[in-house]
Amino acid sequence: MSMEAMLANPGSTERTRVRRIPELAVTDRSTLHQVLDAGLLGHLALADETGQPYALPVAYARDGESLVMHGSAASRLFRLCAAGTPVCFTVTLLDGLVLARSAFESSMNYRSVMVLGHCTVLHGKSKELGLRLITEHLMPERWDEIRKPSAQELRATAVLELPLDECSVKINADGPDDDAEDVALPVWAGRVPLVRQCGDPVPATDLKPEYARIPDYIHRWKA
Amino acid sequence: MSMEAMLANPGSTERTRVRRIPELAVTDRSTLHQVLDAGLLGHLALADETGQPYALPVAYARDGESLVMHGSAASRLFRLCAAGTPVCFTVTLLDGLVLARSAFESSMNYRSVMVLGHCTVLHGKSKELGLRLITEHLMPERWDEIRKPSAQELRATAVLELPLDECSVKINADGPDDDAEDVALPVWAGRVPLVRQCGDPVPATDLKPEYARIPDYIHRWKA
Repeated sequence: MSMEAMLANPGSTERTRVRRIPELAVTDRSTLHQVLDAGLLGHLALADETGQPYALPVAYARDGESLVMHGSAASRLFRLCAAGTPVCFTVTLLDGLVLARSAFESSMNYRSVMVLGHCTVLHGKSKELGLRLITEHLMPERWDEIRKPSAQELRATAVLELPLDECSVKINADGPDDDAEDVALPVWAGRVPLVRQCGDPVPATDLKPEYARIPDYIHRWKA
Repeated sequence: MSMEAMLANPGSTERTRVRRIPELAVTDRSTLHQVLDAGLLGHLALADETGQPYALPVAYARDGESLVMHGSAASRLFRLCAAGTPVCFTVTLLDGLVLARSAFESSMNYRSVMVLGHCTVLHGKSKELGLRLITEHLMPERWDEIRKPSAQELRATAVLELPLDECSVKINADGPDDDAEDVALPVWAGRVPLVRQCGDPVPATDLKPEYARIPDYIHRWKA
């Protein structure tokens, strides 16, 4: 049931070579892009000045061959990232449970991307574009309808860019792979998919009745 | 739309005090336990000897006031954890999208737990119990039906324990909190919940016809 070691490589280095179960490594850029585009949330790992590591949940978007992510400009850990401390950004999509006949072969279906590198800070038009890409990634088609960030809001927000230079992808989409002698055991085996779905929209308590119609794009998110 | 800074505290220290949006901090142990019990996957952050951080997706379970997680005994990064390098374990449940009238207030609903500390390695009966807890957490009621780990499989697996001593919880379950002047903007606002669901089970290609009946517990997972 091990998912601890991921990944190989589009843009692989010795650091991102898949060591555990290397046959699950994926090496084409289009798969890298697809997994990143399918995720909504990643975890950004960095260590502070004392060596203490942190894994922070962050919203992100892919911008070609880079990732953009945002956070509070006042965040201590985001400031460390802005200063160029090494980071790891991991996106993991949990696609299902793999029910083998043995505990050892029981596992998960997943798609996972790990990116190593250093962030740079975006400013000006690049920063505004980064914020737009993140909103469009999470909430497609909504950006044009909402109020854009003010100068004060922009100052309060840090937008970081991380190039997709050193990264790796690992995918397990298979069913169980039991030992031959275990296949005879009297137990069901297979996969149970896990899917993320949108529930019914919940209007804001202060929503004005004249704007109560749910936008078409939200229905498209549910499809 | 910021999720970069989390968390406050049951067992809080200055390191885990919630700085960003501290009013979202949660301080009771039962909520800490509930969030950990609701997650299936966490991200374990650690830095290697060069200072490069990694965020690894790992299966886990809660055992009272500790977490247990497992991985390959041969994993370089798991061996560093076993040797006591500082770690951060983060579980983030993405519960929905918060659609505000401004980009700046647009956000996510989430429940997130961050645990800082040092892992210890489990051996013997504790190790076997840890593996059982992880399987029971991911696949409730299945453990008794499947083949237990052999001595060789146990040797290939490392089980780590991380105490819930220094940790924090941050929850955002609210709808948008727009500025008064934005509430008049002509756009729908509210929340779109995201839910994880089990799909229809997919039998293994080598499943014997006499064991094709889907166990009742899998139907309970879907409920």
